[in-house]
Amino acid sequence: MPNVSPINRTNPIGVFDSGIGGLTVVRALKKILPNEDIIYLGDTARVPYGIKSPEAITRFAFEDTQFLINRKVKLVIVACHTVSSVCLSELKKSFPVPILGVIEPGARAALAATKNRRIGVIGTQATIMAGTYERVIRKIARQDVEIVAKSTPLFVPLVEEGWLDNDVTLMVAKTYLKSFQVEGIDTLLLGCTHYPLLKGIIRKVLKRVTLVDSSTATASEAKAILTELGLARPPSKTNKKPDYRFYLSDLTPNFTEIGKRFLGEPIRECIRASIAE
Amino acid sequence: MPNVSPINRTNPIGVFDSGIGGLTVVRALKKILPNEDIIYLGDTARVPYGIKSPEAITRFAFEDTQFLINRKVKLVIVACHTVSSVCLSELKKSFPVPILGVIEPGARAALAATKNRRIGVIGTQATIMAGTYERVIRKIARQDVEIVAKSTPLFVPLVEEGWLDNDVTLMVAKTYLKSFQVEGIDTLLLGCTHYPLLKGIIRKVLKRVTLVDSSTATASEAKAILTELGLARPPSKTNKKPDYRFYLSDLTPNFTEIGKRFLGEPIRECIRASIAE
Repeated sequence: MPNVSPINRTNPIGVFDSGIGGLTVVRALKKILPNEDIIYLGDTARVPYGIKSPEAITRFAFEDTQFLINRKVKLVIVACHTVSSVCLSELKKSFPVPILGVIEPGARAALAATKNRRIGVIGTQATIMAGTYERVIRKIARQDVEIVAKSTPLFVPLVEEGWLDNDVTLMVAKTYLKSFQVEGIDTLLLGCTHYPLLKGIIRKVLKRVTLVDSSTATASEAKAILTELGLARPPSKTNKKPDYRFYLSDLTPNFTEIGKRFLGEPIRECIRASIAE
Repeated sequence: MPNVSPINRTNPIGVFDSGIGGLTVVRALKKILPNEDIIYLGDTARVPYGIKSPEAITRFAFEDTQFLINRKVKLVIVACHTVSSVCLSELKKSFPVPILGVIEPGARAALAATKNRRIGVIGTQATIMAGTYERVIRKIARQDVEIVAKSTPLFVPLVEEGWLDNDVTLMVAKTYLKSFQVEGIDTLLLGCTHYPLLKGIIRKVLKRVTLVDSSTATASEAKAILTELGLARPPSKTNKKPDYRFYLSDLTPNFTEIGKRFLGEPIRECIRASIAE
């Protein structure tokens, strides 16, 4: 990691995602690091990234990171699974602050949870086709581990439609997930920021499987990193509440409504961000 | 319409869409206007438009149209329902060639098909929320007509997943469409470029309803406009086959596979387009 001298522990944490799914990471951060200011950037003008080429994704990711760096963040969390999978190491080499993706924390949490060393992974088509979770889990595992990875592309539109628990979503979940029962996994890694909202329905299909949520795992690692670097913010002596700022590259009509679903509470204000202009 | 002097009847027809759904319009054009060269532009780097703000959509639409104008098209077809609904009249005022959207042709075809003057309209959330189909149908109708409009946002991801005829898609179709039976429509307008691929499953739910497909209706109106303006291309005397060129702002990994589904035949070559650079 290059020079980090301008970083101060009162600086905010920066989080970016292609859209608003990354708000599940903010939700977890607020719980696990309640003293920290957070700046969120959602690239809603170019969402989704998962269906785009590695070149386009890399260019977008550099622009998003620069946007947060310009706002003096002490840590960048790449909440986007696609970016974490496609170009995280290039980002880490190019910017002077620690950068944390969602893949490694999720992989470590899944390895910590499994007992029979059979792990299932679900994600968007881009995430699964890239094979990143499998590669990272094997690299961290050191011993043998069996991984079954499946893409579940309809889960994102179902969450965005708000069909979190109805017959259609249950049937889609059964179609995608039932083979995991035969394959005998004991742990399922939810490899997409949208999926924590489907935990209830996934549990109906896979009753005895431990669900590992990358958003929560990433927030826990962010705490470890900040503590390690002496950059964690202590509680305010004046009882000042932490500041949360939400930037979007396009102010979409129903952001507030859908955003609330992901963040778990209403979003008061959203600022239009010019990322690439 | 401003000055059209540089237009020649051997020039190509230009078609643009936010992504690849507009290939259903190209498919209809090839059938209805078999002598014409066609240039297709899919803005796959910024797809989808439907979830973005009117400002962003308008900017993207001007850039897409300019891209086609630079390639000397004699007619621009806006295959994107969102653009047709948000800023078609602004485009028409700003460019020196005829510009045709998908909304008016669809509306006219639905009015021609209905006998009981009760028309259903389905589309993405953006299309339905904008209320454009209702407004246009009423304007063209002159007499009373009853319109029931519903958004069916999961149809697009289901088509892209390739689930054109399975139990999940049937259940989604029933959930979205069954109330149309009670409402007694005799005609359903498919207000999205993806929906023609779901005609089979929609017919299972609405057995006695006439399905009107905007892509086919738009290709028919394109023929009428070119004929009227003396710009239709006569059959080649040398038996030269027409030229079809496909530009995408991002060359996505599985474009060829999904594109084939929409176009109805394989796509040989795709060119990367720099729209906004």
